[in-house]
Amino acid sequence: MPRFRETTLQSTPSVPRKERIKDPKDIMRSVDPAALYMLEKAKDQNLISSYDRFAAQQPQCAFGYEGICCRICFQGPCRIKPGDGPGSKGICGATAYTIVSRNIARMMAGGASAHSDHGRHIVHALLHAAEGKLADFKVTDVEKLNRVAERIGISAEGKTENELAVEVSKAALEDFGRQTDEPCTWLTTTITDGRNKKFADCCIAPTAIDRSVVSLLHQTHIGTDADPVNIIFGGLKCGLADYVGMHISTDLSDVLFGTPKPVVTEANLGVLKEDKVNVIVHGHNPILSQTVVNVAKEMEAEAKAAGATGIQLSGICCTGNEVLMRSGVPIATNFSSQELAIMTGAVDVMVVDVQCIMPSVQAVAECFHTKIVTTMDISKIPGAHHFAFDEEHAVESAKAVIRLAIEGYKNRQGMACDIPQIKNKVIAGFSVEAIVELLAAINPETPIKVLTDAVEAGELAGVALLCGCNNLESVHDNNHLTIARELTKNNVFVVTTGCSAQALAKAGMMAPEAIEEYAGEGLKNFLKRLADANQDKLTDGLPLVFHMGSCVDNSRAHDLSTMMAKQLNVDTPKVPFVASAPEAMSEKAVSIGAGAVAMGYPTHVGTMPPIEGSPLVFGIATQIASDVYGGYFIFETDPMVAAAKLLASLDNRTWKLGIHKKTAEKYETQLCENY
Amino acid sequence: MPRFRETTLQSTPSVPRKERIKDPKDIMRSVDPAALYMLEKAKDQNLISSYDRFAAQQPQCAFGYEGICCRICFQGPCRIKPGDGPGSKGICGATAYTIVSRNIARMMAGGASAHSDHGRHIVHALLHAAEGKLADFKVTDVEKLNRVAERIGISAEGKTENELAVEVSKAALEDFGRQTDEPCTWLTTTITDGRNKKFADCCIAPTAIDRSVVSLLHQTHIGTDADPVNIIFGGLKCGLADYVGMHISTDLSDVLFGTPKPVVTEANLGVLKEDKVNVIVHGHNPILSQTVVNVAKEMEAEAKAAGATGIQLSGICCTGNEVLMRSGVPIATNFSSQELAIMTGAVDVMVVDVQCIMPSVQAVAECFHTKIVTTMDISKIPGAHHFAFDEEHAVESAKAVIRLAIEGYKNRQGMACDIPQIKNKVIAGFSVEAIVELLAAINPETPIKVLTDAVEAGELAGVALLCGCNNLESVHDNNHLTIARELTKNNVFVVTTGCSAQALAKAGMMAPEAIEEYAGEGLKNFLKRLADANQDKLTDGLPLVFHMGSCVDNSRAHDLSTMMAKQLNVDTPKVPFVASAPEAMSEKAVSIGAGAVAMGYPTHVGTMPPIEGSPLVFGIATQIASDVYGGYFIFETDPMVAAAKLLASLDNRTWKLGIHKKTAEKYETQLCENY
Repeated sequence: MPRFRETTLQSTPSVPRKERIKDPKDIMRSVDPAALYMLEKAKDQNLISSYDRFAAQQPQCAFGYEGICCRICFQGPCRIKPGDGPGSKGICGATAYTIVSRNIARMMAGGASAHSDHGRHIVHALLHAAEGKLADFKVTDVEKLNRVAERIGISAEGKTENELAVEVSKAALEDFGRQTDEPCTWLTTTITDGRNKKFADCCIAPTAIDRSVVSLLHQTHIGTDADPVNIIFGGLKCGLADYVGMHISTDLSDVLFGTPKPVVTEANLGVLKEDKVNVIVHGHNPILSQTVVNVAKEMEAEAKAAGATGIQLSGICCTGNEVLMRSGVPIATNFSSQELAIMTGAVDVMVVDVQCIMPSVQAVAECFHTKIVTTMDISKIPGAHHFAFDEEHAVESAKAVIRLAIEGYKNRQGMACDIPQIKNKVIAGFSVEAIVELLAAINPETPIKVLTDAVEAGELAGVALLCGCNNLESVHDNNHLTIARELTKNNVFVVTTGCSAQALAKAGMMAPEAIEEYAGEGLKNFLKRLADANQDKLTDGLPLVFHMGSCVDNSRAHDLSTMMAKQLNVDTPKVPFVASAPEAMSEKAVSIGAGAVAMGYPTHVGTMPPIEGSPLVFGIATQIASDVYGGYFIFETDPMVAAAKLLASLDNRTWKLGIHKKTAEKYETQLCENY
Repeated sequence: MPRFRETTLQSTPSVPRKERIKDPKDIMRSVDPAALYMLEKAKDQNLISSYDRFAAQQPQCAFGYEGICCRICFQGPCRIKPGDGPGSKGICGATAYTIVSRNIARMMAGGASAHSDHGRHIVHALLHAAEGKLADFKVTDVEKLNRVAERIGISAEGKTENELAVEVSKAALEDFGRQTDEPCTWLTTTITDGRNKKFADCCIAPTAIDRSVVSLLHQTHIGTDADPVNIIFGGLKCGLADYVGMHISTDLSDVLFGTPKPVVTEANLGVLKEDKVNVIVHGHNPILSQTVVNVAKEMEAEAKAAGATGIQLSGICCTGNEVLMRSGVPIATNFSSQELAIMTGAVDVMVVDVQCIMPSVQAVAECFHTKIVTTMDISKIPGAHHFAFDEEHAVESAKAVIRLAIEGYKNRQGMACDIPQIKNKVIAGFSVEAIVELLAAINPETPIKVLTDAVEAGELAGVALLCGCNNLESVHDNNHLTIARELTKNNVFVVTTGCSAQALAKAGMMAPEAIEEYAGEGLKNFLKRLADANQDKLTDGLPLVFHMGSCVDNSRAHDLSTMMAKQLNVDTPKVPFVASAPEAMSEKAVSIGAGAVAMGYPTHVGTMPPIEGSPLVFGIATQIASDVYGGYFIFETDPMVAAAKLLASLDNRTWKLGIHKKTAEKYETQLCENY
């Protein structure tokens, strides 16, 4: 029977560039029925959304799309032309491979900066809370604090929890600002020995997050590095800095706000309520959103006094995921459809922090009564309300936001709301700790062995992380859903974060019913065993796919793969673990991807980053990366083919581990039929 | 008599975009006769240079040129189209003003990163030398070390010079990595009280270089800041971080290698010698180049044994300026013409470090016997020799480079050299300390008063810094020369750095004879008085324009303006001091410019950065900046008009200081005639 080879997995995408984008005016732009409902309404009312703007941008500049437009100095822009004349290089003589690698490395720097700066904010909040400077925040999860402290070698003995939190926070800040040559603590203490050795040998272990970014910008400045391998490896270092920033964010957010446990909630626009005060939290940072959640409970009476039946919070993007994971706040929608939420006319306030907030939310809000509230110094939108969120007066700030929403509710009376009555049940809250607790019900001594045993037995084909953004280059949510269905059908245990998790949640794939509908036999058995063992704790059963949290919580998935590696007694590149960003869009996705490849995962990206302009750089990302780090990129825009490639990657790894099981053979057949 | 108003100075460039670039195939591409000589040769021999590639890139993409192409996420590229349809915004809804401000802010981040990372390298070298880890480096200028220590509040008492250097170095590293809220030490201790207050009030004082960069990348990530004023002000913060990085570089390079004093040397390709071993140092960092200079002296005998008459070192770009300032090493050429140096056939080795090294030097070198040697981890060129430069074995590394050059010299025998016999005398080496020493010969108590008195008396119209790159959008070196001639004719005391200084040096404007040829009466008298008072020290007289060093040595010019401000008892925005980057090209130029505007200087840029796509951002850079910080950008591509605008800015400032002098009236007349 034919077997997918690594070289096939690492081949160019199956859909040629020109065929990737169908005429965007004709095709269906989303598979989310709530989004489609709102898009119809937008069309009727002449409201413009990102779907229209995507269509208006077609055809997009091929130089930029392929990464061969250089604007790093302003003697340019230079565009690399075919052939070998003087136009085949930039004015400075940079070739396509130099330009492509510089551009993509800078995306890694941008992504690592965004993630990590968010992490720094969390560290400062914890530090100041522990120092007694912030009345509204405190150490919530002492156990997690102790675990983190122990892991990084800080003894808790004889220290109050605040003293310990101060020490841990300062150690985290060291990972941002260190100027000596030791690698980041949050890197070395969270990965396998094998990875530590590999990163040291290849000189890509970051010594500090901030320095890695600055150094990479320097490396990609005009007239500095021209060597694509060196540049991409510099980018991987930044990808690992991104990993450090993510891990710090997750760890210390858990300390501040609690480590997620299973929660039951709902997702999609149907969670909005006409008769309630609707507040949407949108962005990425949990500091504000969690405060809003906490405060909202106290303000129900005020809302009722204004005639509402209560306050309905919901979330978009990762700040939504944060409060979903910890407080069961429902998901309104994900990135691409954020404007559509406002078009329901039911949103009284959308309060935003940082990242992935379309500036256009303000333009749409101006067509309704909705108020957009920006809260961060580095993130404002002209025309929006700006309430500078100040941790020292966090509760006060959050109350002001909710009061604005209550005012909004009053103003909205008499206006039409049009909320699509579409939503699905969601069981979420799966931190690694929560997953381990579930597994421990079967094997209390070595919980992770339940998972690795299932893989070794061939019951599970492996583990896949579905993560990342929306990108309208593909039909909204379609890649996420298609890949998740194919993987679960083929007995892959799927964990998920970010907008990918939100796509799956909206579509009902986090409801227990989805198991029956989509899971292959092996996965079905595995999940049943898990659910049965945890019957007492799980009133609503288990979902088909496991929501691990926000983008920064990809660190949780990394931890899961590292635990599996240690249990299997191999390094992470040998673990049957794959990552996929089916609709990647942001720079964060690029830096997460770089980190994932360095960690050794086959890493699928379902929308093309700008690297096709250099076959050499394409080869570095797909093949040289694999030779050196064991991980590699799979660029594939067709979700069915992508799923087949991911399954083949897992198959390859289980095959190398010496696992030959009936189930494996079975999906291999399906696979080859699919391809 | 009509007076230029601020609003005129801040107007759009006098040459419309479409007329800026003549057909590059027809026009003269340089005003440097040596470059023109080599371009003729290149044409004969079918050698391609940046001049050809610039022509081949025409017409350049107007979206990119104007800054309205967004590639920050990879749902794009998005190009902003005219009108108000869905194509008038990016897919995320970002408007032209958001996109332009994000793009230009990211250039500031890139520039600050490059400058500062170079600074960090110097700090580490000093630290490790002072700790006794580096045999080949030591504290050379103890007086400077003491001055810096005193300025930043570190007492020298009871400390050895190495102990003090360790403390100073660690304080400098704090300015890179600090994670608390105190502003950078190298900012607060080097500027006026007025600037400190202004930066604190406007929240743009950087707390750490690295953090400023990361924060700015976060701010400009997709879906974060959409407010152009906020983004540009975030960029100014990064511009000040760049200032900190430059100042640290200058200070500690002086400590390590000595503070420059007047030296006599030469500039232009004629400095290459057919019968000598020719080694060109190219890049920015003095650590390698200064070691090469020191070692070359010891290796003359080896060169002679190989049949050469000796070793001829020369420099390109700022590493060239560093060794010119401290050791009198001649200048070969500047940025745009770097490939032409190799085309002489006389260069045995070109050893490069970081920044502004065209990757194409390798392609050109392959047509000759020349070897390109890269030396830094973050700066490699495929095909070039890479000798990893290691401070612990610096002398050894430098010797290896020179030995390779001696081998090259041997190989070159029998091959044709074609060196244009064009060069000019150069008097350089004007650190602030050197200038103050000259002034002290007239007024030993308050040396700077000699300069401010000359301005107050109307003898001098003010002080101008000419700095920055080459950019073939203008004719190579033409903007530098034209503006320098106009300013000196109108009695402006011109200091200069970077490729601008190299353009002026090559053209003979750093020879004493240039004073007679170009200086106005006031400037002539001022320079004569200065020369007369220093007769004993200056065997060769004074130059027309004063070379202050490399790009990072723009910090020296800042110090000069701060000294003037303190003497005049005003804040820097009131000092008759202007800055101009006549042929700006690199991101460093953008960050230097941002810092200069924040400091309060009228700051001319003679080639257009990508901001014309948003009249609003153009207005922020030219007008809002002025309202808030007192400094502003003047974008003007016609060098005659630019000179007039710079003179008008100075006039405006002297007028506001209440200085009405005959000389001022005189140049005002010329000015209005010129315009």
